[in-house]
Amino acid sequence: MRSLIDITDFSTAELDALIKSACDISKHPKRYAKKCRGKTLATLFFEPSTRTRLSFEAAMLELGGNVLGFSDADSSSAAKGESISDTAKVVSCYADIIAMRHFKEGAAYVAANAATVPIINAGDGGHCHPTQTLADLLTIYRHKGGFDNLTVGFCGDLKYGRTVHSAIAALSRYKNVKVVLISPEELKLPDYIKTENMANMQYTETTSLSSVIGSLDILYMTRIQRERFDDASVYERLKDSYILTPKKLEKAKADMCILHPLPRVNEISVAVDDDPRACYFEQALNGKYMRMALILKFLKHKKEKENSEESNLIKNKIFCQNPKCVTQTEQEIEHIFKADKTQGICRCIYCDTQSQQKEEL
Amino acid sequence: MRSLIDITDFSTAELDALIKSACDISKHPKRYAKKCRGKTLATLFFEPSTRTRLSFEAAMLELGGNVLGFSDADSSSAAKGESISDTAKVVSCYADIIAMRHFKEGAAYVAANAATVPIINAGDGGHCHPTQTLADLLTIYRHKGGFDNLTVGFCGDLKYGRTVHSAIAALSRYKNVKVVLISPEELKLPDYIKTENMANMQYTETTSLSSVIGSLDILYMTRIQRERFDDASVYERLKDSYILTPKKLEKAKADMCILHPLPRVNEISVAVDDDPRACYFEQALNGKYMRMALILKFLKHKKEKENSEESNLIKNKIFCQNPKCVTQTEQEIEHIFKADKTQGICRCIYCDTQSQQKEEL
Amino acid sequence: MRSLIDITDFSTAELDALIKSACDISKHPKRYAKKCRGKTLATLFFEPSTRTRLSFEAAMLELGGNVLGFSDADSSSAAKGESISDTAKVVSCYADIIAMRHFKEGAAYVAANAATVPIINAGDGGHCHPTQTLADLLTIYRHKGGFDNLTVGFCGDLKYGRTVHSAIAALSRYKNVKVVLISPEELKLPDYIKTENMANMQYTETTSLSSVIGSLDILYMTRIQRERFDDASVYERLKDSYILTPKKLEKAKADMCILHPLPRVNEISVAVDDDPRACYFEQALNGKYMRMALILKFLKHKKEKENSEESNLIKNKIFCQNPKCVTQTEQEIEHIFKADKTQGICRCIYCDTQSQQKEEL
Repeated sequence: MRSLIDITDFSTAELDALIKSACDISKHPKRYAKKCRGKTLATLFFEPSTRTRLSFEAAMLELGGNVLGFSDADSSSAAKGESISDTAKVVSCYADIIAMRHFKEGAAYVAANAATVPIINAGDGGHCHPTQTLADLLTIYRHKGGFDNLTVGFCGDLKYGRTVHSAIAALSRYKNVKVVLISPEELKLPDYIKTENMANMQYTETTSLSSVIGSLDILYMTRIQRERFDDASVYERLKDSYILTPKKLEKAKADMCILHPLPRVNEISVAVDDDPRACYFEQALNGKYMRMALILKFLKHKKEKENSEESNLIKNKIFCQNPKCVTQTEQEIEHIFKADKTQGICRCIYCDTQSQQKEEL
Repeated sequence: MRSLIDITDFSTAELDALIKSACDISKHPKRYAKKCRGKTLATLFFEPSTRTRLSFEAAMLELGGNVLGFSDADSSSAAKGESISDTAKVVSCYADIIAMRHFKEGAAYVAANAATVPIINAGDGGHCHPTQTLADLLTIYRHKGGFDNLTVGFCGDLKYGRTVHSAIAALSRYKNVKVVLISPEELKLPDYIKTENMANMQYTETTSLSSVIGSLDILYMTRIQRERFDDASVYERLKDSYILTPKKLEKAKADMCILHPLPRVNEISVAVDDDPRACYFEQALNGKYMRMALILKFLKHKKEKENSEESNLIKNKIFCQNPKCVTQTEQEIEHIFKADKTQGICRCIYCDTQSQQKEEL
Repeated sequence: MRSLIDITDFSTAELDALIKSACDISKHPKRYAKKCRGKTLATLFFEPSTRTRLSFEAAMLELGGNVLGFSDADSSSAAKGESISDTAKVVSCYADIIAMRHFKEGAAYVAANAATVPIINAGDGGHCHPTQTLADLLTIYRHKGGFDNLTVGFCGDLKYGRTVHSAIAALSRYKNVKVVLISPEELKLPDYIKTENMANMQYTETTSLSSVIGSLDILYMTRIQRERFDDASVYERLKDSYILTPKKLEKAKADMCILHPLPRVNEISVAVDDDPRACYFEQALNGKYMRMALILKFLKHKKEKENSEESNLIKNKIFCQNPKCVTQTEQEIEHIFKADKTQGICRCIYCDTQSQQKEEL
């Protein structure tokens, strides 16, 4: 594995090694200041994301490397109809490693197949955003010394929040992590996440942040968007209960950590920023260190072409129905599904959407 | 003081030291080529300004440092509703110093309060643009050896031209500077500038460039925009008298310096460019040297939290009425006014707009 | 000659030296990794072109230099009405060499006249794009060892494809190059190219790729755009015959090279990519090496002001009628035509459009 598409591409041992590496970088930045001299990172951002892009660029610059790229699709060749594969092949001529954000689900996978250098998924539509999860993990690790036995609350939009889904998938690897899911009914965690990622996790669901905040070691806040509600009056009635304030924090543990993937709008009151439990700006800093560790890891090895596990793959027999999937637009792409015979389902290899067509299994 | 919001943040001694430093850099660029190795400048441009941005980036690169950032608001997290404070806090994790341009007045002040690294104001709406003034000062200094006893003409739009206001404020520090204000009636220098900054300056006002050009040591040209006139016919009648041509220059001193903050449209004829008195392109070069000096100055020290002079500040009792002020949009911001009891007024600490509410003093 | 506007600005000897230099760079990249330390390239892209811009930036970074610039006109001072000349003069203060793409024909020439550093034309509207031709030449050279005696097919849109026109002009310098022009009637090579550049070249024209593919040493593919056809049904009928597929390749020589300036849309089937004759991604890599060679060449010498060959120039008597010519918009520009008395014509010095006014000769 030489590209990072989804957080689960890494084994627990690899995650632990990355965290260790990031800790060392944060303690001894000067030792790493020339590690990537003469190497170039391309940041291909087909949709804007300042924070993520600047974090990647800062990471590479602090390793002594160079950066080039673009920050939105308008200033890219995509405007001329170029495929993601072609862009990835060409940019492989200009850079040693690529961080890519794209609005299509599965785009990073397509790029990784075509590129001759490592691809880091910096977000592919609503699908995955694994380096955010790396930042989350490092922040938890630095405050708690590990992940086993923690009680982690996720609050806000658990339905659409891909950072929540990804963090749960990562935490499910560790022992005895308890999850508390805090959201309005409308924005509950989807069942498939529970089935697939939380089989060995203990979890509870609630609509009330106040009632559970006292039990949490970690509180992971996310934004609730008005657009998610069919009925605006429901949003108006609910929204305040999901805003974190100094008042609500009174009941929390003294060493609870507050995380947020940022940017926030108003879901954490500014008055909370000075509370020592507020870790969300440190989390941004940790994101940089994890990206440094990741770049170092990937640049250590030459890229080898990998063989897919052909036995499980169904090619060009099922077609992905997800309108946001990259297979809807990429030129001459193979439609590939991966069969999971245990569960009796198959999923698009690009965007992980489950097939509706059962007959192929 | 570790950030630069307004040119008056610097004492005369500090300005003189910056000028001296910039002169040394321009003479011995190689001595400075590694001064910022391993340091990163973030250029956060919420509205485009190529010249200013490239000047900052060139400054940092020629000091051996790195650059990251964005060039318009669309490719920033601001599009997602993030506050200026949060952006400043997060970017403090990625860079050692920040140059920021924003369309809101007072934005740089807000950023400086939140950031943990120095902020340089690269323009905050129509409010301040202090590094342009630094470029102006260095250009005058290199041609005249100082500022005392000069006669300086400002020509064009003196009402809205913030570079003019700022240059006057800076020159008011020196001895016996005479100012000649040349503009149509519609675009005269506002009275409050005269009251506040020109108390100890001798000045005259005129509508005719030709009649005064012979007396000037410095002629500072600015653009007159059609949009500033209610009556288009007035604009049409006036505009030519404020265009500098070789013909008008015949009456000027042989060693007069012509300045212009650029970009120009047509207010200086291209035929003037080859005149040895044309200093506006050199002025762009000087802007780079002053920015180098400024970056060096700010990176020398660690940032300390400063205590505001609490005694003069009025918090959350008066609210700024300027629709362009950052307090209109920034999340959970304190409304703060600074009282000047001598003059019997108070001003918004962000955008310097005078309060209409007198009762608070 | 210190700027590159058109490929014919270089002599054959200069082209050969550049190719030799690029080959050496590709073999020994480490020897060149510090050649431009402390030097800065500005990439001024008034219209987007990711591939070209990233190629220039990668070239400069791999020489150890720095990069600054912008990637579209919106984030440039052009939005404020600044002339190309002024932009070129100011950016000369910030960079040691400039690569410029502009939508106006002749823009690079205007910039080269105003700048005090070398200008490389990275595309000026539909006029020239010489560094693409450099990439083409290096790719041919590396596969064929030279240019003499080759049979080169150009396929697709030969009417509007400036990369084709430029490649033909370059190849016309070599001995016994045979050209095969493959296009629909609607998109045939313009007569003036034949007259001016192909006088000493043997060429044939055809509408059928299949019928000639077996004779080619080089096949240069370009895109056919639907918009070029008045009659959509003609496009629909023709398009497939100009798409390169593995089937069509069966008749081609085993060592034929397939070139394409990229980005492609669908004119080369993705199935061709794995064919060893597919050289278009290598061509992108070669573009980087040629740009490295070009930057090195230009930074070796100090810029001297050149004297135009005044005798042939007609100033401000004829006015260019090309609506896309830079003379239509640039402030106070001289209209200059160059007379070619042998052919009895004169051409705009900026965009090469022939004058309709004959009386001046």
